[in-house]
Amino acid sequence: MTLPILADSVRLDGDGVHILDRRVFPFEREWVLCRTSEEVAVAIEEMVTQSSGPYFAALGAMVLGAREASGLPGVEARAYLERVGERIIATRKTNNHLRKAVATVLSKVDESSGDLVEAASRGARAGDELYRSRSRALGEHTAALVPDKATVLTHCWADLYLVEFVLAARRHGKEFSFLCTETRPYLQGARLTAETLAEMGADTRLITDGMGAAVLSSGEVGALVTAADRVTMDGHVVNKIGTLGLAVAAEAFGVPFHAMVQAPDQAAPTGADVPIEYRDGDEVLSALGHRVAGERVRGHYPAFDVTPPRFVTTVVTDRGAFQPGRLREYYAEGEANQ
Amino acid sequence: MTLPILADSVRLDGDGVHILDRRVFPFEREWVLCRTSEEVAVAIEEMVTQSSGPYFAALGAMVLGAREASGLPGVEARAYLERVGERIIATRKTNNHLRKAVATVLSKVDESSGDLVEAASRGARAGDELYRSRSRALGEHTAALVPDKATVLTHCWADLYLVEFVLAARRHGKEFSFLCTETRPYLQGARLTAETLAEMGADTRLITDGMGAAVLSSGEVGALVTAADRVTMDGHVVNKIGTLGLAVAAEAFGVPFHAMVQAPDQAAPTGADVPIEYRDGDEVLSALGHRVAGERVRGHYPAFDVTPPRFVTTVVTDRGAFQPGRLREYYAEGEANQ
Repeated sequence: MTLPILADSVRLDGDGVHILDRRVFPFEREWVLCRTSEEVAVAIEEMVTQSSGPYFAALGAMVLGAREASGLPGVEARAYLERVGERIIATRKTNNHLRKAVATVLSKVDESSGDLVEAASRGARAGDELYRSRSRALGEHTAALVPDKATVLTHCWADLYLVEFVLAARRHGKEFSFLCTETRPYLQGARLTAETLAEMGADTRLITDGMGAAVLSSGEVGALVTAADRVTMDGHVVNKIGTLGLAVAAEAFGVPFHAMVQAPDQAAPTGADVPIEYRDGDEVLSALGHRVAGERVRGHYPAFDVTPPRFVTTVVTDRGAFQPGRLREYYAEGEANQ
Repeated sequence: MTLPILADSVRLDGDGVHILDRRVFPFEREWVLCRTSEEVAVAIEEMVTQSSGPYFAALGAMVLGAREASGLPGVEARAYLERVGERIIATRKTNNHLRKAVATVLSKVDESSGDLVEAASRGARAGDELYRSRSRALGEHTAALVPDKATVLTHCWADLYLVEFVLAARRHGKEFSFLCTETRPYLQGARLTAETLAEMGADTRLITDGMGAAVLSSGEVGALVTAADRVTMDGHVVNKIGTLGLAVAAEAFGVPFHAMVQAPDQAAPTGADVPIEYRDGDEVLSALGHRVAGERVRGHYPAFDVTPPRFVTTVVTDRGAFQPGRLREYYAEGEANQ
């Protein structure tokens, strides 16, 4: 089976970094070509790609940066590349993935005494493989928790974790059906998740965001499975707005909720350490650019919600599945955050 | 204060029945003129109006029917009017309001020995006043349950009950703020509720359907208040899809849920007596006529959900507020269904 297009939506070649434009996907399949590291930064700022996309784009941008610096003397080239990294990180200050992508490439460059572009390319490949192998492990651990033929409810867009979850299930002879919430206001569930699952040949149905509790109460759903933007050390799941409501309903109707995250966040000991981000309320007032309410109505837009551990069955990481109260076990004694 | 336009959106005059077209509201304020009872039936079938709109349209259609029959001999005129009623009732077989509107007019006609049109008009006025006075009582009883300055979360479109709730609060010196869910797929919350509340000068914010649990968990919401399409005698609340998820979250975070219905339904003793209606899944796949998902995605559309009594704080009726386990007290000994 070939991978769905969103599993390989950032591609580096001799011309630059090609980024699938998620703003118009799946209605159009357009690629934005970024010929310079700066063009990648702008593309990230302009939301051409989201979720894991910026991570892969950052890896590519660092290779472009190395190409741009390759005529410079060693110290200046290293300084240039560092500035590229700072520029990339500044595009989305709260995205830790960008920081990791930049650090991975810079560390390979610093290890190497050879060609800058070759070292940066090695770093980008290592960063790519690391992310994919951790996603693969996550998918394996999650698929093990869900019985064959289950209907899985998912929310928003779990990106490579979701793709690897489906692939892992199939390696073990399991097949799931999916119910996807559309995930307003940006419709990532409708545009990215449902499309990708259908592309993979999974039985896929789309519901609106208000239908989650009804399908959870009906007995037809075997598990609620979502990604998490962040999981605190005490088991609070921070994720796209709407996750909390689904988790509360899942708990009420006896459906397990598995939240997928690479690792719990040692920088966030408790749920109280995570401030809710409010975005511009106007974004609620339209769908696909079309106004949904009259001119006198205001919008309100909490972008994320925080699900307390009492509504979380399992936090699944690349190192296996944990109950939300036992996330400290993810880290070996004295180990730093991943 | 003048009433919001949706509180008076079906108007009878010498030309016929004018119905505000809710399919394009609030973006356009267009009226559909129905010159005959048959044109009213078609307008109801074509979803020009919803919620209480068909009830008022049915009253108007019966007056038009009386005008159409006025040249016929008495028995034939009565038979014609009965056929008009049957035609109106057939437009939406599950809508009990239509049956009541038709019965109210026919009973006034049968009481009268005078002019048919005059008797039908009297019946239509009585039906109009009955619905409004019961809505006013409902609004009074609900407003009494909610403290001054509370933020009220509401879902879908509670129609005259909501308007009367706001008016009753103001009569008692209370003012509420509102959070309205947009209520996909038809966006009644965005198009009807938020518009009407803003038109009434209430502080009004729109959220997407996935944001309900987050605002309920934040401590800012004083009450969840919705209408109910039907309440079973054992306290199950049947309402627009999405009500269940809000009710479950309200219960989880200690927010009271008040469901407004004229009367509990003696024809539905338990929640098990209410089959869920599934509508065409394609309706989930677009918003305001614009496709939200790719061509390979299917939709799934349970139109209503059933909230068990453990998630319901109060069922508010025209006869006062009841705990969901005490709905039998609505009816006096031996009284028939309202």
